[in-house]
This record gives sequence, C-alpha cells and structure tokens, in this order.
Amino acid sequence: MNGAQALIRTFVGSGVDVCFANPGTSEMHFVAALDDVPEMRAVLGLFEGVVTGAADGYGRMAGRPAATLLHLGPGLGNGIANLHNARRARTPVVNVVGDHATTHLAYDPPLTSDIESLARPVSRWFRCSASPQALVADAVDAVQGAFGPPGGVATLVVPADVSWLEAGDPATSRPGAVLDTVGGDVVAHAAKALRSGETAVLLVGGNAVRARGLVAASRVANAAGAKLLCETFPARLERGAGLPSVERLGYLAEFTIAQLQGARHLVLADARAPVSFFAYPGIPGYLVPDGCEVHTLATGTDDAPGALEMLADALDAPPDAALVESPTRPERPTGPLNAQTVAATIGALLPEGAVVSDEGNTSGLFVSGATAGAPRHDWLCLTGGAIGQGLPVATGAAVACPDRKVLCLEADGSAMYTLQSLWTQAREGLDVTTVILNNGSYAILELELSRVGAGDPGRRARGMLDLKHPELDFVALATGMGVPATRATSAEEFTVQLERALASAGPALVEAVLR
Amino acid sequence: MNGAQALIRTFVGSGVDVCFANPGTSEMHFVAALDDVPEMRAVLGLFEGVVTGAADGYGRMAGRPAATLLHLGPGLGNGIANLHNARRARTPVVNVVGDHATTHLAYDPPLTSDIESLARPVSRWFRCSASPQALVADAVDAVQGAFGPPGGVATLVVPADVSWLEAGDPATSRPGAVLDTVGGDVVAHAAKALRSGETAVLLVGGNAVRARGLVAASRVANAAGAKLLCETFPARLERGAGLPSVERLGYLAEFTIAQLQGARHLVLADARAPVSFFAYPGIPGYLVPDGCEVHTLATGTDDAPGALEMLADALDAPPDAALVESPTRPERPTGPLNAQTVAATIGALLPEGAVVSDEGNTSGLFVSGATAGAPRHDWLCLTGGAIGQGLPVATGAAVACPDRKVLCLEADGSAMYTLQSLWTQAREGLDVTTVILNNGSYAILELELSRVGAGDPGRRARGMLDLKHPELDFVALATGMGVPATRATSAEEFTVQLERALASAGPALVEAVLR
Repeated sequence: MNGAQALIRTFVGSGVDVCFANPGTSEMHFVAALDDVPEMRAVLGLFEGVVTGAADGYGRMAGRPAATLLHLGPGLGNGIANLHNARRARTPVVNVVGDHATTHLAYDPPLTSDIESLARPVSRWFRCSASPQALVADAVDAVQGAFGPPGGVATLVVPADVSWLEAGDPATSRPGAVLDTVGGDVVAHAAKALRSGETAVLLVGGNAVRARGLVAASRVANAAGAKLLCETFPARLERGAGLPSVERLGYLAEFTIAQLQGARHLVLADARAPVSFFAYPGIPGYLVPDGCEVHTLATGTDDAPGALEMLADALDAPPDAALVESPTRPERPTGPLNAQTVAATIGALLPEGAVVSDEGNTSGLFVSGATAGAPRHDWLCLTGGAIGQGLPVATGAAVACPDRKVLCLEADGSAMYTLQSLWTQAREGLDVTTVILNNGSYAILELELSRVGAGDPGRRARGMLDLKHPELDFVALATGMGVPATRATSAEEFTVQLERALASAGPALVEAVLR
Repeated sequence: MNGAQALIRTFVGSGVDVCFANPGTSEMHFVAALDDVPEMRAVLGLFEGVVTGAADGYGRMAGRPAATLLHLGPGLGNGIANLHNARRARTPVVNVVGDHATTHLAYDPPLTSDIESLARPVSRWFRCSASPQALVADAVDAVQGAFGPPGGVATLVVPADVSWLEAGDPATSRPGAVLDTVGGDVVAHAAKALRSGETAVLLVGGNAVRARGLVAASRVANAAGAKLLCETFPARLERGAGLPSVERLGYLAEFTIAQLQGARHLVLADARAPVSFFAYPGIPGYLVPDGCEVHTLATGTDDAPGALEMLADALDAPPDAALVESPTRPERPTGPLNAQTVAATIGALLPEGAVVSDEGNTSGLFVSGATAGAPRHDWLCLTGGAIGQGLPVATGAAVACPDRKVLCLEADGSAMYTLQSLWTQAREGLDVTTVILNNGSYAILELELSRVGAGDPGRRARGMLDLKHPELDFVALATGMGVPATRATSAEEFTVQLERALASAGPALVEAVLR
C-alpha cells in the first residue's frame, strides 16, 4: 500500500469521507488511489476557491471535516480566500496540499514555492509530512487538528514521493471536539450582572446559535430583561418558526452602535466584543459603549449552549421561557423586482429544512426579516468577508445534506469570483437553487465609497464599481456550465421561476434583475 | 493631498500609469483619487487572478510595471497563482495591497490576516507603508524594487489610514534595471569550452531570447557547431520570419534528456540548468547529462545579449552568421479539427506583430512548429506552471500593446480558472482573439497519470480528469461576459471563424472543439 492509499484509508477510518479536489501532477497517486478506496467520495472543482469554499460549507453542515486536494503553493493560493472564511467560521477542514517530491525541491522547479508561508495565515494546524512512515499518524493528527477545539483549517502538505512510496498500515481514529464546561463562578458572575437591573445585552455567536443555545439564550434574555443579539456573520444560524429569533448585529458600525446604545453589561456567549468591519475616519473601531462592562460567559473552546443553560437556571428562568417565532410568511409580492420583493418571495417560498448560503450583500438586506417565520432552516453567512463564498459553500452544504434543499443568495459581483461552482453542482446533480441578485454594480462599495470620507466620487471612481459595461448575463453563464437558468425582471416572474426552481431536483439558477 | 493621491501621482511620476484593480472598502480612497490623476489608467478585473495575471502580461510587453490594487489578504490570496507566474517570469509588477487602518488591526476584524506571510513567497520586495509621510518614498522604492534586476513582484501594503491621511508631495523617479556587463574572463571560459571540439549546447532564456540575444546566440551556435536550445517556458520569446528560431526544451523530462544527450558542455545565457518540471519515480530530476560541464555565461542580473555578442566575437563569428527563419506558412487545413489542424490554421493566419499568450497545453503541441516562419511575433509562456495565466496575460498584453493583435491559445481546463478576463477585455475593448482548445479533459493530467507509475487508472481516477460531464459551452460563457464567440468543429469552420475574429477589432472568442 502506498502513501496515498494509506492516507485516504486513514481519512475514511477517521470519518473524513468526502474530498473536494482540484489535483495536478503531484497529486496523481492520490487520484489513482480513489479507485482503491470507494468509501471516499471525490468531488471535482474547476477552481480551488470552489474546493475550499465547498469544504467550508460541508464542514458547517456535517459537523466534521471534508478533505481538500490542492496542487502546490499556487493551488493553495487560489483557495486561500475561502480558507480564510473557513478559519473565521471555525469550520473543520482537512486541507491537503500536494508538493513536489522531497528529493525534487532542491532543484527549485517552476511550481516550487513556500507553501508553509502561504498556509500559516489560514491554518490552525500545519504539518508537512516527512515520510510515508509518518503519513498515517500525520493524517490522524490533521483530522483532530481540524476539530480543535476551536475548529479550523488543518493543512497537511503531502510531497509526491510520500504519496507514491510504500507506507505503513492505515489507522482509524475517533476525532472530535471536546468542549470545556464553563465554571460555576463564571456563570454566577454573568448572572449577577444580568440581575443588576442595569441595561444588558446578551450577544451570542459561534456554537451558541444552534437550536439548543438559542433556546437557552432566549430564556436568559427574557428572565433578565436583556436584549438578545447575534454576531453579524454567524457561520451557521438555526432559525425559523418554532425557534427563538435573534437580531443580528449590523454590518455598518453606526447600526451596531445604535443596537448597543445604553448597554452597561455585555455578556458574550461564544461571540467577540463587537468591532467595526472596516475603519472609517472619525468613527470608533471598538463598538462597545463607554462604561459598558464586558463579561465573557463562553469562548470558542467552551460548551456555550451548556453555559447558557446554566445561566438560565441561575436566573430561575422557566424551561419554557424561550420566546419562539410563530409560523408566518409574507404574501407573494407583485410589481417591480427589488430587494424588498425578492425578500418577500423568498420568505413566501423557503422550503422546510432549507439551507441558505447567504452572500446577497446589499441586495439581501430584507431577506432575513422576510424569512424569520418561515419553516425551520439554517443560515450560513460570509464569516470572513472574503467574497466568493456563497456558491462554493452552497455546493459543499448540498453534498453534506443530500436530503435538504440548498438556497444560495448571491450578489452579482461576488458571484463572479467562484462561479465555477455551478459546474460542480451540475456534475454532482446537487440540489441547489441559486438566486443571483443582479444590480449591475458593486453596490456595497458604492455605499462604502460615500462613507469613507473620500469626497464626492467622480466619474472614474464610480466606473470602478460598475458592472454594467458590459452587462453580465448569468443565464448564459449558468447554462454554459450545465445549470438550467432563467431571468426574472418582475416580482411575478421571480415568484414563478423561484417556485419552479425550488420544486425541481438538482441545480437551477434564477437571475433576479434589480434595477 | 492625501496618501492615495500622493501614491498615484508618484506612480505616474515614476512611469507606472496603468493599474489593474479589484478594490474593496479599504481601497476606496485610492479609487476616489483616480479622478484626481487622469494620467493613471485603471482597469477593473472581476477577480484578482485576472488583475495579477494582467499585470504580468503588461509588464512582459511594456518592459515596465503596472500596478495592481488588491483587497487585503484574501484579495492577495486570489492573486497569488499569477503572481507566482510573474515571479518566475521575472516580470516587474508593483503589487499594491490595501489593508485595514493601522489603528484598526488590533481589533482583528474579520478580514484581517497575515498579509506579509502570504506575500513573501511571491515577492522579491515587500514593505508595509507605516505612515502617509513614508508612503511616497515607499512608492518610489517599490517601483525600483519591481525593476530589480532581476525584475519581479514588489508588494506594497497600504493601510487605509495611510491612504486617507494628509501626505507629503508626490515624487518623480526614473527607475530601471541596470544590468551587469559580463567579464571577459567569463566569456573567454565559455569560448574555450565551445572551441573544445566536444559536443556543446547553448541554452538561452530570460533576457536572452529577444531579437538581439537570439541573433547573437545563433552566431555563437553556428560558429561553434553547438546546438542552440531555449528554456521550456520563456516569459517572452521573439520569433518568426527573419529571426533565428530556437528549439525549446521539452516539458517532459524524457524529451529534455534526449535533447541534451551527449553534451559535454552546456553554456547558460540567462537560463538555468534543466530540471524536470515534476519528479517521477525512477527518473532523475536534474537533467544535465553525466559528465557534462555547465558554464554560466550570464545570469538574470547580467546583460545576456551583450555577453552573447562578446562570445560571438570571441569565436570570430561573422556579424551576419545568424541563421534566420524564412517566411513560410502552412496551407489552410481541411478535415477534422485536431491539434495538428488547429496549429496549421494558426500558422496560416497569425498576423504580423501578433502577441501570443500560450496556455494551450497538450492541444498546443504543434503550434510552435506551425508558426516558426510566420511574420514576426512574441510568444508568452506559462512561466510558473500555475494554470489560469493565459487569458489574464493576454488581457494585460493588449493593454500594453494597443496597436498589436493579441492571440490567446487557451486550454479548456486552464480557461476556467480566470475566465473573468473576458469581461475586462469586453469592457476595455481590447484587441484579443481567444482560441479555446476544448478537448473536454485535463489532458495533461491524463498523460501525467499514466507517467507517475500509479498503475492503470480506474474509472474514478479517470473521472477526476474529465470535463465533459457536463460539457463546458464556451460560446455561452463568453457571450455571458460580453465577448462575441463562435464554435468550430472542423478545420474549415475554424479557419473561417479565426480569420473573422482576427480581422475584427476588439475581443472575440473561437471555441475549437477537439474530439
């Protein structure tokens, strides 16, 4: 058995049985070994940003890592933006990067680069496997490294000769994330703050925004009269009818400042004290109000839902005190297609159990409100701010959840970074409906340009944010990659087309033209 | 004047007047400043790999750097693959990466990452500008850093507040590459080897494969009875009728070994001693034959054409002893469309003064031979092996050479990495004809899979190299980005369509279906 075979068997024996891949010559033994280990599902991406983003989406939904397969430093480079998002999402990912044979590196052939320097900024765990004898143990460590806690990207570099030489027997392991139980003193300290009678905010994020954590958080907030808020871009937020709904912190600093105004206590459950996404001249970067005390109830290595339950009990909150969302949907809208009517249509049609990959940016502003009472679903956000996440994350989520409908809300500008995802969706027959919110611009940057104090933008500056010359035709682009697509220019058309797309099995795309 | 305005004015004052950009919020002051400095041409790319590859193509043809504009670490990450190619091409590039305001980094907002760690592997010069007062000097140093010699990527990180705060006056500078003159002893040593009567090879690359260097190299080779070879992937090779033609070293180690067989002396003129692109079990990585002495005539910091002229004179080679290619073109082919007939058509039609961006991979195997006697042109190769180079390099070359036709030969698999280049070509009206060589597979990997000793590939392994399920429709993909496109399935169709595309001004694409 060669190294590649032992590696794949060890992955499978440790619960990693999906590999998103864009291989090259140095990974050919890994590719060849796929036929020896049918338990490993290999999913081809035409670009590495698809591969790494799909691994992120998979990990968020499966709760365990997928592997990637990338080709040396440049292949890793193409995957860095979505590894950055996975790092910020704390998604477990086993990031496999092939390299030249160990004996070949000294010659500095053209594709040689410093892989470690490229990988470190996105990796919580890094190792270059030194020999086929070490590879099996390295693979076990990489899988556990991806779980953490906190979870994250574990990068394992596999030189070509480590793949092709004879290796030892594969291993099995039972990796997982063992979370710390929060101490009673920490809980008591937070309870005291919440009982003080002073204005308090409970901010939840990370592991605390799934059903169990949200129910406990809602009990806490109701018992204490505290405001319940969620971090701006949670990796995976459970929501919909029957679950407590939480208001997310605004993306713009001004909104966050307003949401936190008057708070004297801020209790953090696996969330960070809010900071501005970007700096702006004359606006503070740290958004916690002056005089507000910050209490950390749970960090990313803690059992945050458990801590919230302990806190609810400490506050004598009844078990049924969570305030849950009632089932409600907006009417199907009519008239012009705009951010509001798109949102209403999605709220009217979102299927039970949907997984929403949200990179709608400015055009998605109203969707959250319109879907709050829709049937229960998961919401996956742009955790690291590196655009080009939505389509790949949807792709990976669909691989992880074959029985659930995935809805991808994608802005036109962001879509163009990793549009190759559509081909993988077609190839694998993934059940993803993509909505392209096409407003013909980098609208978020038009907003930002007006906010950074750069004066009135001139013609050339505005031109750099314009995507209309020429117009992007997403119907042509999608069909060119094998995904059926239609274009909607009114609310009525959008409703009909989205309903049809959601009713079909397999990938479909609706271009919503917002003008 | 703020930092961004001073930066752009200093660039323009130092000869850098094109900026390929994919900006974000932290770059908005740079974008706003474009209206203050109309001498700077800003070219928008929808993806950072387009931006960095275009800067590479521009630099190769203009002989001076373009600037890039990238958005923090993830934006840089997306650009790394083509910066890697630029590094291997030694192309001067001023790589501008925006970052958070210096005051904001301590909060570790979502887009924060270790930019220096990401940038170092592709940069020969790196600096993060510490203040608006330092920025102008940093910009001057960055431009000179890009020139070297040897040329390369100079990465300048510009924090947002360094852009928006008041800065000093802009500067002008006259950067350039000052090459060393090779010493007479080095020339005499090479001359002695070439006069020894033993089998000798003269290997040229880098700065030595433009007209002047090639003429001198041909004189040397003819006078000494030596074989003249060129490195495998030159950054810019001048060729065609009236110029000496050089045989390029093969991509596959077996071919290179055959080309060098029997050589007792290898003289290097700005080329490296040949090594295998990848390692293979049982095949040597260092390809210089045993017993062959290597003589370095000129390195990348030397005046290699001058050294070759000195060597030719030392060998008493007459000034007119260069062997130049006669004007000759293949007949227009008929019948099935395959790698041979595609090559013949290109040879028949290549316009005078064309710039060819070649990422045709396996399908482009015969094009070099078919164009050897075509009118004089430039050939730009995949220097670093990071695929996704061809379309962006063509884009940048067209910006640098508005009066020349650019022909991009692009393989289907490689095209899908940076296909967004087409949109920039349409937006800017660039005179690029793209030929997509669509064989429905990663054919180079099919070849490699059979060569790495991984046994007979099974169904699943072969499936990972297959691009036919679903088929990519490049006509739809191109028209979706505003580039007119047609599909050819026979040699006759291809000839008609390529001729029409080459005759039109502005971008056009021909999909050549090879089956």
